[in-house]
Amino acid sequence: MASGCRIGPSILNSDLANLGAECLRMLDSGADYLHLDVMDGHFVPNITFGHPVVESLRKQLGQDPFFDMHMMVSRPEQWVKPMAVAGANQYTFHLEATENPGALIKDIRENGMKVGLAIKPGTTVEYLAPWANQIDMALVMTVEPGFGGQKFMEDMMPKVHWLRTQFPSLDIEVDGGVGPDTIHKCAELGCEVFMEEELTKQPIFFFLVYFQNTICNTYNIQNRYESTVNVTGRLPVNRRLLDFGGSQKLQISNYTGVWCP
Amino acid sequence: MASGCRIGPSILNSDLANLGAECLRMLDSGADYLHLDVMDGHFVPNITFGHPVVESLRKQLGQDPFFDMHMMVSRPEQWVKPMAVAGANQYTFHLEATENPGALIKDIRENGMKVGLAIKPGTTVEYLAPWANQIDMALVMTVEPGFGGQKFMEDMMPKVHWLRTQFPSLDIEVDGGVGPDTIHKCAELGCEVFMEEELTKQPIFFFLVYFQNTICNTYNIQNRYESTVNVTGRLPVNRRLLDFGGSQKLQISNYTGVWCP
Repeated sequence: MASGCRIGPSILNSDLANLGAECLRMLDSGADYLHLDVMDGHFVPNITFGHPVVESLRKQLGQDPFFDMHMMVSRPEQWVKPMAVAGANQYTFHLEATENPGALIKDIRENGMKVGLAIKPGTTVEYLAPWANQIDMALVMTVEPGFGGQKFMEDMMPKVHWLRTQFPSLDIEVDGGVGPDTIHKCAELGCEVFMEEELTKQPIFFFLVYFQNTICNTYNIQNRYESTVNVTGRLPVNRRLLDFGGSQKLQISNYTGVWCP
Repeated sequence: MASGCRIGPSILNSDLANLGAECLRMLDSGADYLHLDVMDGHFVPNITFGHPVVESLRKQLGQDPFFDMHMMVSRPEQWVKPMAVAGANQYTFHLEATENPGALIKDIRENGMKVGLAIKPGTTVEYLAPWANQIDMALVMTVEPGFGGQKFMEDMMPKVHWLRTQFPSLDIEVDGGVGPDTIHKCAELGCEVFMEEELTKQPIFFFLVYFQNTICNTYNIQNRYESTVNVTGRLPVNRRLLDFGGSQKLQISNYTGVWCP
């Protein structure tokens, strides 16, 4: 991926009966990619959806959107091929869920996907280190996986700092509880701009920030927008030019732009 | 439920990225209830969706549609309360998945849902018999659970016959591979009319028929419709009057009406 930060909103708290439309809305609002939370009710106490849903999403959204599959499942080996066939781009598995990360990484690559490796809050980052040079992205969970709407665990930030120091070229992703009140803590690590996607009456609490491999601080966000404005026309949101027809409200905080249609 | 047969199409092979719209279409086409296939990737080698999707569906569809949850999961005890909260009406678990069917039946009732009990093709019907007087519905699988599009196992029909004989007042459901070519084999047991829902380019192979507790043969389907017609106006489909605007094609076989918009 190019340098700079990326936003991959999770669809966990969106309207799951209309997932295709919800994803389109997020992409139209400037999401860089989609973070798709797969849960099997065994690795975490919740069941969300599996590869048949991903297949339907790919059919509707076309080939362009990047799908990062966050596999919160107890047997990640089982779903590599089905997810690749369904149209996944990146397969992010949990280190806690497998006995043989090396074989799994190999299998994911052989199936044409990028590799993400996730750790739960209770797993120290040193366990991830031996695999860091073989993966595309490290995911540091900032809540216990399983549900949206949880409180951001600030004490996970040293993991991000340690990974950034040890593996300067590694992409680092944080997931869980990131929002307007907590995003500055992530931004201190060098992110450029974050945008929280907020769907009307379906807020996405469980929101995800992608720390890119290059630390960017070329933009001074404070000087870029006013705090709350009614906007019409073409405006930069999350480094893209978006059209705002009519007079829609764009709320901006220091590091966060929330688009409320 | 009232006497007569019911159709509960499965949404397994529909467009899962637009599940709300797909369900509305099935209900508008005359579905009596919705059969929602929950798979956890452990009891069966597939993951479909869990209670968060059901919650979104209930929000969109309102309180009226009856949701029969076919729980193809290895720990059915775990999802009783979440499914009740999400808006499920009937909780159909697999006899093979639990050590204590009695406690589970009690828990489902205490959570305000009806009770369904399912058996896989390899489970003899005698194992189900001890619970037959405590449940609302027995589900006889006519394929191995896990995927749509499988061949109907005719040799499961003696199970249906045996259950009908032993428990005349029990509702009996068959699930898997039921379609225009096989439905007459089910109909011989006394069903009134079956309808296969076929969504444009998203055929529902995995389709389900509900054997009601009263054997009905008051209608002679052959005399009711022609084989293939273009229809406009108000027509009876599956014992409901449905409006067909414009000229839509209604294909009718002896026991099956397929509505192709």
